[in-house]
Amino acid sequence: MSEVLNRREFLAAGAAAGMAALPGDAKRGAAAQTLQRKFYSNLAIGLLGPFHQSVPETIDLAVKYGFEGVDPNAEYFASLSDDDLKRLLDKMEANNLRFGAAGLPVEFRKDEASFSDSLKKLPATADALKRAGVMRVSTWFAPASNQLTYLQNFRQHAYRMRECALILADRGQRLGFEYVAPRTSRARGKQPFIHCMAEMKELLAAIGTDNVGFRLDSWHWFNAEETKQDILSLRNSDVVTVDLNDAPTGLTLDQYNDGQRELPAATGVIPVKEFLDGLAAIGYDGPIQAEPNNANLRAMPMDQAVAATSAAIEKAFGEI
Amino acid sequence: MSEVLNRREFLAAGAAAGMAALPGDAKRGAAAQTLQRKFYSNLAIGLLGPFHQSVPETIDLAVKYGFEGVDPNAEYFASLSDDDLKRLLDKMEANNLRFGAAGLPVEFRKDEASFSDSLKKLPATADALKRAGVMRVSTWFAPASNQLTYLQNFRQHAYRMRECALILADRGQRLGFEYVAPRTSRARGKQPFIHCMAEMKELLAAIGTDNVGFRLDSWHWFNAEETKQDILSLRNSDVVTVDLNDAPTGLTLDQYNDGQRELPAATGVIPVKEFLDGLAAIGYDGPIQAEPNNANLRAMPMDQAVAATSAAIEKAFGEI
Amino acid sequence: MSEVLNRREFLAAGAAAGMAALPGDAKRGAAAQTLQRKFYSNLAIGLLGPFHQSVPETIDLAVKYGFEGVDPNAEYFASLSDDDLKRLLDKMEANNLRFGAAGLPVEFRKDEASFSDSLKKLPATADALKRAGVMRVSTWFAPASNQLTYLQNFRQHAYRMRECALILADRGQRLGFEYVAPRTSRARGKQPFIHCMAEMKELLAAIGTDNVGFRLDSWHWFNAEETKQDILSLRNSDVVTVDLNDAPTGLTLDQYNDGQRELPAATGVIPVKEFLDGLAAIGYDGPIQAEPNNANLRAMPMDQAVAATSAAIEKAFGEI
Amino acid sequence: MSEVLNRREFLAAGAAAGMAALPGDAKRGAAAQTLQRKFYSNLAIGLLGPFHQSVPETIDLAVKYGFEGVDPNAEYFASLSDDDLKRLLDKMEANNLRFGAAGLPVEFRKDEASFSDSLKKLPATADALKRAGVMRVSTWFAPASNQLTYLQNFRQHAYRMRECALILADRGQRLGFEYVAPRTSRARGKQPFIHCMAEMKELLAAIGTDNVGFRLDSWHWFNAEETKQDILSLRNSDVVTVDLNDAPTGLTLDQYNDGQRELPAATGVIPVKEFLDGLAAIGYDGPIQAEPNNANLRAMPMDQAVAATSAAIEKAFGEI
Repeated sequence: MSEVLNRREFLAAGAAAGMAALPGDAKRGAAAQTLQRKFYSNLAIGLLGPFHQSVPETIDLAVKYGFEGVDPNAEYFASLSDDDLKRLLDKMEANNLRFGAAGLPVEFRKDEASFSDSLKKLPATADALKRAGVMRVSTWFAPASNQLTYLQNFRQHAYRMRECALILADRGQRLGFEYVAPRTSRARGKQPFIHCMAEMKELLAAIGTDNVGFRLDSWHWFNAEETKQDILSLRNSDVVTVDLNDAPTGLTLDQYNDGQRELPAATGVIPVKEFLDGLAAIGYDGPIQAEPNNANLRAMPMDQAVAATSAAIEKAFGEI
Repeated sequence: MSEVLNRREFLAAGAAAGMAALPGDAKRGAAAQTLQRKFYSNLAIGLLGPFHQSVPETIDLAVKYGFEGVDPNAEYFASLSDDDLKRLLDKMEANNLRFGAAGLPVEFRKDEASFSDSLKKLPATADALKRAGVMRVSTWFAPASNQLTYLQNFRQHAYRMRECALILADRGQRLGFEYVAPRTSRARGKQPFIHCMAEMKELLAAIGTDNVGFRLDSWHWFNAEETKQDILSLRNSDVVTVDLNDAPTGLTLDQYNDGQRELPAATGVIPVKEFLDGLAAIGYDGPIQAEPNNANLRAMPMDQAVAATSAAIEKAFGEI
Repeated sequence: MSEVLNRREFLAAGAAAGMAALPGDAKRGAAAQTLQRKFYSNLAIGLLGPFHQSVPETIDLAVKYGFEGVDPNAEYFASLSDDDLKRLLDKMEANNLRFGAAGLPVEFRKDEASFSDSLKKLPATADALKRAGVMRVSTWFAPASNQLTYLQNFRQHAYRMRECALILADRGQRLGFEYVAPRTSRARGKQPFIHCMAEMKELLAAIGTDNVGFRLDSWHWFNAEETKQDILSLRNSDVVTVDLNDAPTGLTLDQYNDGQRELPAATGVIPVKEFLDGLAAIGYDGPIQAEPNNANLRAMPMDQAVAATSAAIEKAFGEI
Repeated sequence: MSEVLNRREFLAAGAAAGMAALPGDAKRGAAAQTLQRKFYSNLAIGLLGPFHQSVPETIDLAVKYGFEGVDPNAEYFASLSDDDLKRLLDKMEANNLRFGAAGLPVEFRKDEASFSDSLKKLPATADALKRAGVMRVSTWFAPASNQLTYLQNFRQHAYRMRECALILADRGQRLGFEYVAPRTSRARGKQPFIHCMAEMKELLAAIGTDNVGFRLDSWHWFNAEETKQDILSLRNSDVVTVDLNDAPTGLTLDQYNDGQRELPAATGVIPVKEFLDGLAAIGYDGPIQAEPNNANLRAMPMDQAVAATSAAIEKAFGEI
């Protein structure tokens, strides 16, 4: 093995090597062989259906179905002794698993009292995440409001997200924001708000800290009529986490519904190759998870849903 | 006469009664007697159909059909000698006619070159308007863009409209902006922009001159789901000119089309009384014209269209 | 007594009538005779020196030295039974006294935690003030920062002051902001911030509620090189409370120090007539208090300081 | 010679090799030996004194005194035939010379008419610069205004610089902005404006094109109390051009005057090593020129001034 392999490559190479020895890990090894990508498939079990697995259970699922990462859980980490946490992280490392991004545990969509109360809990949660090595946090913004104008909402988000970002920055953690693009979602409030990449860039600039960026979702990227060129305008440091989804066939941009998506590369409606090529080109090195919001998937037994998701991500990654 | 008539209705009813005794100027006299309202019905002939009348011809129509104002024409004023202009204004005064608002003759929706070229002509046009006593100018903004984000568009409008407003302010003239609210209009561009009163107020503040305000249209007020309370948040000095229209029956807010409206008080879909009561309450003292964008009206002979418009405005004014 | 006297004039006339009967009230009667002004002299005892008087004690001082108002105290009001409060307000009314503006009891100059904690107490304080009829609240902004850029500071103030203003608006109360203009004050931080009327107007627009305005101080107005024309750009509803001070002689705009001012009309450096004429012209009907920050005054016995302040305000009011 | 040398390093190494053969080029060779820097010393002859040399004359001076670049001149380029221009560029290449940044030939500090008139000439100037391979353009902003508030000025600069940046972006050219930091400069207008790196970053974000950045001057960086850490917050792509100057001894931050500076590394007041280390660390690969605004230098014969400047830059570069 060449000495110039860095730790990332070492882990990936290790995974590839492990593939031969562990027949059940076939899919994962296959994915890891694609060394030109730096991003990794992440099992966000809670996004697939009504599946409430613990982190260790999710790790087992990830190993079984060839994922390269699992979603973190700050509460669970906080409940572990140092020894128990070390065992968990050792198991992660032994299986070449990394963590996805944690959700931002702050109520910033309501009044000041709710915001400030929940903000007080952020430092402890951020500490718990950092203790487990989780350095990525993310949330999403509603693309419309019945209370605030665009400018008022922009100022409120700039203020509140700055407060959150400063706490995370103290710990070296990053914060990613997801815009929501479907026209049916945008029609849910009288006043428009951020719904696309260009608008989100302006908010990032207004927040003004170095640790904020995107939770980029192919579903919203597609609904916002964006292209690979838009992704190429970003740098790896601008992308905190990524969702990968496809869209149902037979609908127009006026009809896509946020609660009815498809697994990655399922229909081909969303140009997944263009999306992933863009991310590979900017050297994106974070997690990619499916968030299919799909009724069929939610109705499946858990193992079947996880397997279907793994296959879908593998298919998508295979296109780059 | 019903005892429940309030003073305003009493005056209006008296005016209506007096109409019978004065065959010639009947309608106009009736309207003029309504002393409690300070706004006046304005004949914007170009907004009714393919009718290209000169100012003197429009004055004759206004007198014939009982309007209290006519739309100005800067080019025509500029073509008149001082004596001819004096005769025109004397005729206006003899018939108790005032001018409506002039359109803003500046191309601010395209590139910088178009903007700056057309801006150079504004001082001369403003001078010509002022010479005829026209102190109100107005324009409208597209509620969506395919090029600029909300913030970029906001800055560009703030910059360009400030340039226009400063030129008009030098002459004591005011500049009103119309927001466009129908959802079908808002869907014509990827990026949202100003579409309601609250958003426009923020632009007015950013422009920062004392002479900017609204061109308020009951059609957009209705499509933006605004109420009398919103109008009461304005002062007379905030309203430069007013459009009065009704909406077709049987449609939802998703379906109204800017090119298919109705004459004032035609269908009752738009609560015209609420709208005009609000304007009366804030002491609005400017012009009110119909801009029906109505195929039936456009197909009528001109006199018939003007008569129908006069009757519609009279009916609407009768409700306050 | 003319029948057309309104309640304000009645109170003022009553004060004038009382002057004859109460020799000690001479100054107050004299001031009240100036019927064209609607604003009133307010005794802000805490601004004159190290004088910690209760509200009743301050009322007695105000009566004795001819003031028309006294500063409120929310904590004191909250400590009173309904009966005791009624007696206090009856005494105020019997002496034609009104309240000045209360201070904003919110820590908005530090971190989010301090802000949100103190904001939680605002509703109770606002209730206590409203129970005593106090509808004006005010605070001031530092004109420089070492942490935030102008834009960041603007957004933070817009956010935090909006939170405060919404709570006060629920109770019909208004909130006034004082800009700080001396160059020596502006030099206390690396990053500039709001220091004049034009800049504050932009913040008021960004806050976007109907109940925010100015705490206008002749000292800052003078240091910001503003004129009567600037005051005439305001309306009565834009001014929540007013400070009246003069400046030391022999200094330049580079040298004025916020901690070294003079009583109103003491030196004539600040054109007090221009300032008060402007306020009278816009119909300002709120309190005016001295905030002299003056070492000589602070060293005086309390009664002497109050008498000197009363004389200074009377002299100033006499110039309009 | 190592194979890993890229063309830039090759050129620099070539210059170093040439040093032995050409005694007169000693200084330049010395500077070029510092391979870890990618930026180059640029002879901006017009910034040193009343020296009006043509581009060819400046090239000869640069060669003679060991500079690695010369300032461009769009008018001169436009006057050259293709053949003459090729000869000029061949001579540049033969001497391993590159161009500095051109000035932005747009009047954006006055009214709209001046701006739009001068903007019309930008495409032709940009074309002439591009024909000679000049891809860097820069200008500076006044840190105060007597007409516009910070927000108004910000919007105006965002609008006007965006118009300029779009024209340059069409040609692949970049535009850098210099903030002016001395307190004495900031005191020249009532209203504050951009005077430091953090504020300029916000304007760059508002302009929103990919081709805008800084003209970074150690003089302003020092006066703004900025550090190496601030430079490390930038990337190479954020810096378009750099000025290197020192400050007089014995003055405070209140006293530095923009018209009285010193040659680089002359006094040691400005920590030149910290400044250049920062630029080297971010991989800055553009020109660095002295802009000493120094009376002694202006009084020297031209060759002496150029030699002194070369020695000063060499001394400064020697510290990294």
